[in-house]
Amino acid sequence: MAVYTQIGAEEMAALVNEFDVGELVSAKGIAEGVSNSNWLLETTGRDGSGARFILTMYEFRIELEDLPYFLSLLDHLAAKGCPVPRTIHDREGALYRKRGEKALALIEFLPGVSVSEPTVEQARAVGAALAQMHGAAADFAGRRANGMGLAEWQRLFDACGQDGLAVIDPALAGLVAEHLPKVAAAWPADLPRSVIHADLFPDNVLMRGDRVSGLIDFYFACNDLMAYDVAVTHAAWCFDASGQTFDADISRALLEGYEAVRPLLPEERAALPLLAQGAALRFTSSRAYDWLNTPADALVMRKDPMAFARRLEFYAANPGVFA
Amino acid sequence: MAVYTQIGAEEMAALVNEFDVGELVSAKGIAEGVSNSNWLLETTGRDGSGARFILTMYEFRIELEDLPYFLSLLDHLAAKGCPVPRTIHDREGALYRKRGEKALALIEFLPGVSVSEPTVEQARAVGAALAQMHGAAADFAGRRANGMGLAEWQRLFDACGQDGLAVIDPALAGLVAEHLPKVAAAWPADLPRSVIHADLFPDNVLMRGDRVSGLIDFYFACNDLMAYDVAVTHAAWCFDASGQTFDADISRALLEGYEAVRPLLPEERAALPLLAQGAALRFTSSRAYDWLNTPADALVMRKDPMAFARRLEFYAANPGVFA
Repeated sequence: MAVYTQIGAEEMAALVNEFDVGELVSAKGIAEGVSNSNWLLETTGRDGSGARFILTMYEFRIELEDLPYFLSLLDHLAAKGCPVPRTIHDREGALYRKRGEKALALIEFLPGVSVSEPTVEQARAVGAALAQMHGAAADFAGRRANGMGLAEWQRLFDACGQDGLAVIDPALAGLVAEHLPKVAAAWPADLPRSVIHADLFPDNVLMRGDRVSGLIDFYFACNDLMAYDVAVTHAAWCFDASGQTFDADISRALLEGYEAVRPLLPEERAALPLLAQGAALRFTSSRAYDWLNTPADALVMRKDPMAFARRLEFYAANPGVFA
Repeated sequence: MAVYTQIGAEEMAALVNEFDVGELVSAKGIAEGVSNSNWLLETTGRDGSGARFILTMYEFRIELEDLPYFLSLLDHLAAKGCPVPRTIHDREGALYRKRGEKALALIEFLPGVSVSEPTVEQARAVGAALAQMHGAAADFAGRRANGMGLAEWQRLFDACGQDGLAVIDPALAGLVAEHLPKVAAAWPADLPRSVIHADLFPDNVLMRGDRVSGLIDFYFACNDLMAYDVAVTHAAWCFDASGQTFDADISRALLEGYEAVRPLLPEERAALPLLAQGAALRFTSSRAYDWLNTPADALVMRKDPMAFARRLEFYAANPGVFA
């Protein structure tokens, strides 16, 4: 949640000039992004009427070889009418530019705000937007494995160790030991696949009223089971931040919205309780690892792993929410 | 350089609705401000054509009783044609709103970028904008003492102590002991006064090309000697960041730009070498204090006190730059 790199106004103006977007008018570093720095840029626009963009500098974690996947996915989805920001190519047609070891990409700015207490209508719209994205991405040529899949959850929990998990919560190691092997053993391999967002939290959805104006932050996107993306989105939207309160109305609306665009197959629906436990394990694992490995002076706020451990327990105990 | 407080989209929309500026379209926390949180807001505007604003939440340091001074000063200066952002009053006419113990103000967004390597023409424009501001503020009714005046430098250096100053640089305590008493003894009392910005670094000036599009961040503004403000601005613009290199061309252009709008009196010009040493002491003192008192996990970057100690030495040795 910070700007890690300073770019002077003169360099920023020269950088903007490498794109056919008019001249730089304003640049504000914005407090978004964990592994990258972001600026909200205003330019005079190609026709002088003004335009806005997000400039992202990839600082770490994101592998450079994945950038073409993420950025061309945005172009693919935008061309099919999905509410995602287009990538602005530079004057030579490149998707991104290099600055030393780092990469810089310019993407369209989309209006909208990220809601913190979604209404039923907003949840329905998010479900529909997710299904639309899954459909639109079906013929996307890029391929990327899910770097945050089952094997990675196991690796992150192992890296935390029993002692580390106990530091977070006395019950956490037991919960993981109870559920992770069962989830791993039953994980489905043959459900329908597409590109999935894999991180569609409210933070990553821009809304104007009840309408989705933007799906953003595709940096976990990968080729995986569509129903798993439904499960991730469900885990992200249907609980309060602490994971203690489940909202059945939001849950129903999210699933209805999704199925209004793309009905789930019976085998996908049957797998959702398990996939949702997987989604809960995925965020428990990364949050637990970050909890133990984020230095006290980091600019990043640590997030409570137990908020997703509670979801894990909920999903294991309540498969009926997907019935 | 961070957003200290989270405000949910729903609360933000309700807050915007307390002002007659249309409906909230977008809100981005921006990485500016040391003692406050800032958001760049977009709304539909009063006429539906869109408008942008900066929302500032005052987190600490700024005394609430000073807010009316800062905010009404913006209105006063804007009404006289100075390039400063206007304060947006709420529907009841209030300059700011309360949120718990904190205050929130909505101000106009101004385009422009803060240059890091000013050109001679830019320095000239900044000098002129400063003089214009001094003239426009002459009949401002508000009164605020300079909280960062001589007595405060002394207090901050005392709080650092000899040992603390030695931690920063072995030469620092000696420099302060040599210059501060002389500057204090000769400090002029009877030069012309107005409202001064008192912190007009390049960061606090927005430019479009060679033109000043905004003077911002008036949170050190106070009633004091105009020539001291010239000295502060000189110290802020005429050196490289380390304070090791003085740029005589920028210096000349800044002073010429100022005098093109408001010629300095002979006694003001004569006092500039001393006032500039004072300006250097002012920033040395606050940076030294912050250097020793900023926790390692703070979200704020510490600034090198020696960059201004070097300016102090330069000004003491080179009074001729103001001749």
